[in-house]
Amino acid sequence: MGYRIGVIGLGYVGLPLAISFSKKFKTIGFDIKKNRIEQIKKSFDVTNELSKEEISDAIKNGFEVSDQINHLKNCNVFIVTVPTPIDENKLPDLTLLKKASESISLILKKGDFVIYESTVYPGATEEICIPILQKSKLLLNDDFYVGFSPERINPGDKAHTFENIDKVVSGSNNYALKIITKLYQKVINAKIHPVSSINVAEAAKIIENAQRDINIAFVNELSQIFEKMDIDTTEVLDAASTKWNFLSFKPGLVGGHCIGVDPYYLAYKAAKIGYQPEIILSGRKTNESMPQFIFDKIKEKLNFKKNENKDILILGAAFKENCPDIRNSKSQDLYNIFKYNRLNCKIHDAVADVQEMKSLYEDDFIEKIDSIYDAVIIAVGHNEYINLNFEKFTTIESVIFDVKSIFPKSKGFLRL
Amino acid sequence: MGYRIGVIGLGYVGLPLAISFSKKFKTIGFDIKKNRIEQIKKSFDVTNELSKEEISDAIKNGFEVSDQINHLKNCNVFIVTVPTPIDENKLPDLTLLKKASESISLILKKGDFVIYESTVYPGATEEICIPILQKSKLLLNDDFYVGFSPERINPGDKAHTFENIDKVVSGSNNYALKIITKLYQKVINAKIHPVSSINVAEAAKIIENAQRDINIAFVNELSQIFEKMDIDTTEVLDAASTKWNFLSFKPGLVGGHCIGVDPYYLAYKAAKIGYQPEIILSGRKTNESMPQFIFDKIKEKLNFKKNENKDILILGAAFKENCPDIRNSKSQDLYNIFKYNRLNCKIHDAVADVQEMKSLYEDDFIEKIDSIYDAVIIAVGHNEYINLNFEKFTTIESVIFDVKSIFPKSKGFLRL
Repeated sequence: MGYRIGVIGLGYVGLPLAISFSKKFKTIGFDIKKNRIEQIKKSFDVTNELSKEEISDAIKNGFEVSDQINHLKNCNVFIVTVPTPIDENKLPDLTLLKKASESISLILKKGDFVIYESTVYPGATEEICIPILQKSKLLLNDDFYVGFSPERINPGDKAHTFENIDKVVSGSNNYALKIITKLYQKVINAKIHPVSSINVAEAAKIIENAQRDINIAFVNELSQIFEKMDIDTTEVLDAASTKWNFLSFKPGLVGGHCIGVDPYYLAYKAAKIGYQPEIILSGRKTNESMPQFIFDKIKEKLNFKKNENKDILILGAAFKENCPDIRNSKSQDLYNIFKYNRLNCKIHDAVADVQEMKSLYEDDFIEKIDSIYDAVIIAVGHNEYINLNFEKFTTIESVIFDVKSIFPKSKGFLRL
Repeated sequence: MGYRIGVIGLGYVGLPLAISFSKKFKTIGFDIKKNRIEQIKKSFDVTNELSKEEISDAIKNGFEVSDQINHLKNCNVFIVTVPTPIDENKLPDLTLLKKASESISLILKKGDFVIYESTVYPGATEEICIPILQKSKLLLNDDFYVGFSPERINPGDKAHTFENIDKVVSGSNNYALKIITKLYQKVINAKIHPVSSINVAEAAKIIENAQRDINIAFVNELSQIFEKMDIDTTEVLDAASTKWNFLSFKPGLVGGHCIGVDPYYLAYKAAKIGYQPEIILSGRKTNESMPQFIFDKIKEKLNFKKNENKDILILGAAFKENCPDIRNSKSQDLYNIFKYNRLNCKIHDAVADVQEMKSLYEDDFIEKIDSIYDAVIIAVGHNEYINLNFEKFTTIESVIFDVKSIFPKSKGFLRL
């Protein structure tokens, strides 16, 4: 197959995908961020998804990256992997998706394929992306073809990678579906699951993270109820987990670019068509309430007042354990609540990039833990935190909150 | 161990438990329902959990049943397995649990154990049952001991039985926990999981079904959203299920004595201690709305008016597939909505007891399907319904609603 692949958006989804495609096809990656392009050229991946070797091997074998869309003008398959975040009102922000579609429309040719991997609500590809692509004056299914194949990258997960997990694919017509299925079969060593429409593929993706969100919200709600009853939620969950069909979820902070975002996409679309999604939104509400719940517990234990001279340390700024990504992290919400209450709050992360930490938290970012704190919140379960000697930076009166229950109950730490 | 077991309540939980204990200990079962006692004496189990042979073998080996509590006066371990339903206001109805405790208090002796298996909200055993037992003038942990070990019977499930599933146990003190653990170890060929308090054991049980409820509510909510978008929910769920961590739940009617009931127990207790449980109650609300949703779809398709001469058939009156139990079934709610709208609604069940069907549905119960219907709703996925020839009792204009998606999409039936 004489396919030349252009990948639009080289984040934690796009770069691994582009590298995989580059092993079988001529592949060019595009990103609007100049520094990301420079880093990739130096075989450095700030998201930690790929090793230096994997990137440099790909480059040696012809993989190219560029911040100029014209560089991709000879490609005939465009795969869009740009972020689809929410705005400050928790509404879908499709700016980057629209921009990517605009850029592609400038270089789209007869016979080309455009495959979207970015998570959207059902209907978005047909209602928003395709009209933009048609600004090229080319016609869908006559001149060019569209597909949707949801990304399933799990940041930091080395077991479930682009190449070895099952892939849902869809197309704008049967021919598109056939070609897109074949294309992914070339690069993926797992099952390709074709579905009957782009809507179905979009829906299949958006519900995956909504399901995780609601399940974590359920155990977060339990932890709020049981805390009032002086029942240890982790012990309850461990006991319930001895039942064959109990689902093991842990309470905690839900951040990131997927679980805390996708449900809003689905809720947006549902509301638009006249359905108020009770379950989905109650899940979001509960998960959003967790930083305040943790703050309230610490406040109750330390019995502090606003502006009082208390030293707080948050361990973990990333949105997920063993992951360097500090964007969309609920640790930041927790930090903001402490700052709003004018407490002396510092934040540490064992994995995140020092420069990124500095630019987000300025003087409140600490690289080394060398002071004594009144409260320490282990907000993220990075492996590095398990071996910490808490006696070095706490006193007998300090409060330690082990949000993710990474330590045994016998330690006597507060937990959800 | 010289234990003599008395089992209070011989329903689908108590009878299998009593029979299992009778293999190792002298065991007497008690139930207030005279006809249930007569049936068991004739080795007949209307709940289908046990075969004639299993019961008659137990009786031959000394298993006794009685509707007189005094028959159990020589027992020294009492296990309570009475129903804990909800009343018409969806509030916990602990009448039978209180009555069982009263009965035991009349025959309780020094050194005796009382173990509750009935599902309750956390705190109920200590707040409600123990005070009643102490009417005997015996003192907890001085004279008698209490435990809580939640039942995990899954009606109709022959793979997960009392004897082969892990069991959570708790006790009123360490001695009680030790003895109760040993007792269950004698009859259960799986792990015994002791927990630190009765509260924890109660909590572990009540969340199991609440979790299932919320997960089914989530897919029910999806089916309501996707129906408006003309997306087939089953196809979406099948696609999402190709992701390694997607949880496979099907939309449907949630009835029965556990999933549709336990969340109200937890919500009741949460509200009592000042916490409004968003997730749990939104799950209940969505699941309770499903009969009306199905009715609305049928109405939309048939375009009927109240009191119009339309013939409706509901297939399945039980609360669960391949289970004869018609109590707490949402099929009945669906039937009631059709009747309220004065349509000619009949109901059939391939598994339930004919007499029970007759007494609940009177003339609307049909044993044989030998008429033509305008709408047929396959509400319960009994195996018997898969081989039905729908052409025999529907016309080309009839609407068939396959609530549990037991038929392939290609059949063209409506589904959730």
